[in-house]
Amino acid sequence: MPNNHNTDVPHIVEKNDIHRIEPTNWWVGFKNPLLQLLVHHPNISEYVPNITYSGVSIEKFHKADSPNYLFIDLKISEDTQPGQFNIRFKNEGSEDLIQTYQLKDRKHSSEDFVGFNSTDVIYLITPDRFANGNPENDVVTGLNEDTINRHDDYARHGGDIQGIINHIDYIDDMGFTGIWSCPLLTNDMLESSYHGYAITDYYEIDPRYGSLKDYLHLSSELKKRGMKLIMDQVANHCGLEHWWMKDLPFKDWINHQGHYQENIENWQEGISKTTNHRRTTNQDMYASKADKENMNVGWFVSVMPDLNQKNPFMARYTIQNSIWWIETANLGGIRQDTYPYPDKYFMSVWAGEIMKEYPNFSIVGEEWSYNPLLIGYWQDGANNRDGYKSNLKSPMDFAMQRNIVNALNEEESWDEGLVKIYEGLANDFHYVTPKDIMIFPDNHDMSRIFTLLNGDIENTKMALGYILTVPRIPQIYYGTEILMNDFDKPGDHGLVRSDFPGGWEGDTVNAFTGEGLTEEQTEMQLYLKILLNYRKNSKAIHKGKTIHFAPENGIYVLFRIFEDEVLVNIINKNVDTVLLDLNRFNEIGLQGKTLKNIITNESLIWDDTLKLTKKGSLLLTTKF
Amino acid sequence: MPNNHNTDVPHIVEKNDIHRIEPTNWWVGFKNPLLQLLVHHPNISEYVPNITYSGVSIEKFHKADSPNYLFIDLKISEDTQPGQFNIRFKNEGSEDLIQTYQLKDRKHSSEDFVGFNSTDVIYLITPDRFANGNPENDVVTGLNEDTINRHDDYARHGGDIQGIINHIDYIDDMGFTGIWSCPLLTNDMLESSYHGYAITDYYEIDPRYGSLKDYLHLSSELKKRGMKLIMDQVANHCGLEHWWMKDLPFKDWINHQGHYQENIENWQEGISKTTNHRRTTNQDMYASKADKENMNVGWFVSVMPDLNQKNPFMARYTIQNSIWWIETANLGGIRQDTYPYPDKYFMSVWAGEIMKEYPNFSIVGEEWSYNPLLIGYWQDGANNRDGYKSNLKSPMDFAMQRNIVNALNEEESWDEGLVKIYEGLANDFHYVTPKDIMIFPDNHDMSRIFTLLNGDIENTKMALGYILTVPRIPQIYYGTEILMNDFDKPGDHGLVRSDFPGGWEGDTVNAFTGEGLTEEQTEMQLYLKILLNYRKNSKAIHKGKTIHFAPENGIYVLFRIFEDEVLVNIINKNVDTVLLDLNRFNEIGLQGKTLKNIITNESLIWDDTLKLTKKGSLLLTTKF
Repeated sequence: MPNNHNTDVPHIVEKNDIHRIEPTNWWVGFKNPLLQLLVHHPNISEYVPNITYSGVSIEKFHKADSPNYLFIDLKISEDTQPGQFNIRFKNEGSEDLIQTYQLKDRKHSSEDFVGFNSTDVIYLITPDRFANGNPENDVVTGLNEDTINRHDDYARHGGDIQGIINHIDYIDDMGFTGIWSCPLLTNDMLESSYHGYAITDYYEIDPRYGSLKDYLHLSSELKKRGMKLIMDQVANHCGLEHWWMKDLPFKDWINHQGHYQENIENWQEGISKTTNHRRTTNQDMYASKADKENMNVGWFVSVMPDLNQKNPFMARYTIQNSIWWIETANLGGIRQDTYPYPDKYFMSVWAGEIMKEYPNFSIVGEEWSYNPLLIGYWQDGANNRDGYKSNLKSPMDFAMQRNIVNALNEEESWDEGLVKIYEGLANDFHYVTPKDIMIFPDNHDMSRIFTLLNGDIENTKMALGYILTVPRIPQIYYGTEILMNDFDKPGDHGLVRSDFPGGWEGDTVNAFTGEGLTEEQTEMQLYLKILLNYRKNSKAIHKGKTIHFAPENGIYVLFRIFEDEVLVNIINKNVDTVLLDLNRFNEIGLQGKTLKNIITNESLIWDDTLKLTKKGSLLLTTKF
Repeated sequence: MPNNHNTDVPHIVEKNDIHRIEPTNWWVGFKNPLLQLLVHHPNISEYVPNITYSGVSIEKFHKADSPNYLFIDLKISEDTQPGQFNIRFKNEGSEDLIQTYQLKDRKHSSEDFVGFNSTDVIYLITPDRFANGNPENDVVTGLNEDTINRHDDYARHGGDIQGIINHIDYIDDMGFTGIWSCPLLTNDMLESSYHGYAITDYYEIDPRYGSLKDYLHLSSELKKRGMKLIMDQVANHCGLEHWWMKDLPFKDWINHQGHYQENIENWQEGISKTTNHRRTTNQDMYASKADKENMNVGWFVSVMPDLNQKNPFMARYTIQNSIWWIETANLGGIRQDTYPYPDKYFMSVWAGEIMKEYPNFSIVGEEWSYNPLLIGYWQDGANNRDGYKSNLKSPMDFAMQRNIVNALNEEESWDEGLVKIYEGLANDFHYVTPKDIMIFPDNHDMSRIFTLLNGDIENTKMALGYILTVPRIPQIYYGTEILMNDFDKPGDHGLVRSDFPGGWEGDTVNAFTGEGLTEEQTEMQLYLKILLNYRKNSKAIHKGKTIHFAPENGIYVLFRIFEDEVLVNIINKNVDTVLLDLNRFNEIGLQGKTLKNIITNESLIWDDTLKLTKKGSLLLTTKF
């Protein structure tokens, strides 16, 4: 637990009698004056808490079903000074227990927490697989999984926070403006803990990734470069080895708790009530109660207990945990896992409370759906018939991800090929703010784009070029720039999340320096680097008007326009030379103008026709 | 032109000097007091029209670009009596021209025109191919296409209105409650005029189908049985042989008019500016002006001139024509062809004016889209971001049509098979009123359902059973009940629209009497007949609550519930015997109740489990 001292804190005798108190600290100066402390200690329910600190009062305290918990509702009045105080727990017949608690001063104003947006491109990292910056934390004794094995796709490989810090300059130079790392919190699971989505302690950085200090260092190094740190959070479930699973505070702390407790001996064998994964039940007005409930209270998988956000203490715990991390790590965004799985009304409150504290913040929610109706439903401001208000700024665009893959893989025809992205993007008329939606060629849960596009480099460039020029927030998975793939076992999670070459001492290929990369890898890396760096300053892409023309003869043309900046993306699937009649695009007003090829730097004059000599995306701009 | 006399009409000397005046008559008592007459006569623009009739005034008259047209704006005040009057056309130096015009009394109140709705099932007929009730009109001299040939799929076969009249009892007994016939207006085209969508006279029944009198007879015979007549109208385009194509009133009466006139000599060779068919441009906020315009003003095909509804005289002409037919034929609905092709703001006005005159009327618009976003966009009441208000009650559900086919053809898996209809129906949360949407297994423009389902009778029954029990207005194409198919040339329009056996004298098979049908055909006919007749009185289907359960183990269960009527549709794809655990459906409250199998009339008690011994839909009801 962190134990930072402010210089202006009045001196008190610091004591830590209590086994666990969460949040581990808090701040003065939030809009919401309430704070609920979870106290975990043997028979703590037999004690009465007391605080003497100006501005802080105990409004109420609650016993739980387990005697070892106490939940304390604090009110922190507006004029409370930062500082430390002792919480004294009294029980007739026992000695008092004393726990020092800190209210910190906020280092930044609420408005300073500016979330990712369409000016950004996010680099998604699986931290165990990106770079091993500190081999000393590869194996941490005391944790269940205490080996590393780079030959096993599902074992830990040793990547860590220091590895990311060591390569921020690479990421920055490439032109990415934000990093979303898969969860870095402790996953003290028996196996396959490398992915991070089975959290066993919501207030601790997994020691195999480093320390809180390392995480804050990563945050400040990013901030220095104007980059954003996006934290991957998981409200729906924890890991089965979470500390509270041995002593659950309430009878309904997790869903199917009774069933779990009955079967606890052989639970690991897979006796669980898993979710039906029927995500449409969240919207479907015909969905049966049984299916809706099963969707929301079923466990995601048998080793991930489903948290019951209908328990108000759990709900409060999760909201405070998110705010704790935003404030502690100066976050530039949250990516929330499995968004449609928890109770959707809780998620609305969760996002709402965060956005109320941090009005410029961004949250992206993972709804794995190819259906624009569902994508649109989750975005804040949607005019949903059921009245649901999500407070969520950014849904994820799985629909366009699939459209892009299909558009490039399919032979051109009336309703196949490029028309898939043309009509896919046309669906934007349904969205509140299309440019706040996150788009991606792939992610850590699916085959890599180079694999999805059957190893076609030109198609991969076209996919990336499109993603980077449409009105969206692009996310690109680490290694895409060097054509990382999963051809050997397409879609296999362990393989998708392969080690980034150069991240480990002794790697013969080093993608950070370019050493040992194939010509094709270098070409792709450079392509992305040039395009990402152009995008950084392209207002046409960040907030420009979009005009696109229906695909004709295997060519689809997209324009982004802001004031005098016109960006043209000509997506051409013709292998042989074709002449493109530019008169069709007269309404854009480019006639006679000089444009520059963003990638090659060559100039051309926008004339009657344009000769396209090979398949690929031609990215042109008027601004150079 | 019709020339009906009311007994209460004051006697005047009737004269018909004018070549053509449209609408051919009008009525007193509409909410809208305005009427615009199109007058077509050699050099009529040199004349000044005059009317002396109490309540009727000429507000204005307009010359066109052609000297042979005059458009007269009449105002018919509220207290105007029905009757006849003469319009006198004066021109110094010429003799007056006199045209008698009639304002009829309305036979029914506006509210009496009750359109089709979810209590109905519509029988779609291609009139040339259903039944030949009057062989004398098979060939009509003076028309371009003046032969019949039943061996040629694209020639006329001789079916007609009398053929439909002759078999209303069959249609009624089957359980259909409405008839939508493909257009019956004159298509005096050079070839392939049988389909009816190339109208050459908007005020005339094609003589090969019969007369206006026949059409009114059909209407009254249907009305007698409580059935509805739905007219197929075409606002987007006419046939190239339309009478006005030889003397177009305005320079912009049709789209691409100049281009057409320049190329008129070799137009038939296919020199036309056809639409890009990119229907998404109607919604797409990124669509280029060029594409949007091309979509709306391009010709549907080269023999169908695209009418320009931006010309206000054309717009008025089309609206009045629709109202004329509703009022004349006592229609129970309009099906509007190619809905997204005309100017969408015009279509809103068109539908709006009709619905204002006939508040209980129904219009279904053909938008061939598999995208629920577009289907939803067109339905009146949709909260469209662009503010578009369609005034259209019923879009068509091409999305569910495809979902049903895929659901039954695909092997069951996580995201294939029955989940396609389960998730497809879940999209209803997006629609204003799902039950006003028209659903169909197929139609005259696509392969027949039996063909789409690869000749699987059980799957065909399942498709039909589903269509008839979901909250929709079902439409079924003639011959579906006897498994008509297009296996020989799947999707071929001529073949899809094959002759209904028994409709022609001498047919060896007669589906009306059952003579010569195969066992399978008889079985399907009976299945549909039982189900349609059950549906007629099923409030659960008409307006009941819908609850469905996500497919599990190849079984998908849908409930429709209204008061004490519960209808259960158990769609089971298992070929071998399976036990269905009924406890999953406890929330429906059927435990211990007796249900009847709608098709077989067998009873069963809703218990813990249900044994399903073969693939198929089990349709059960509590109401019997």
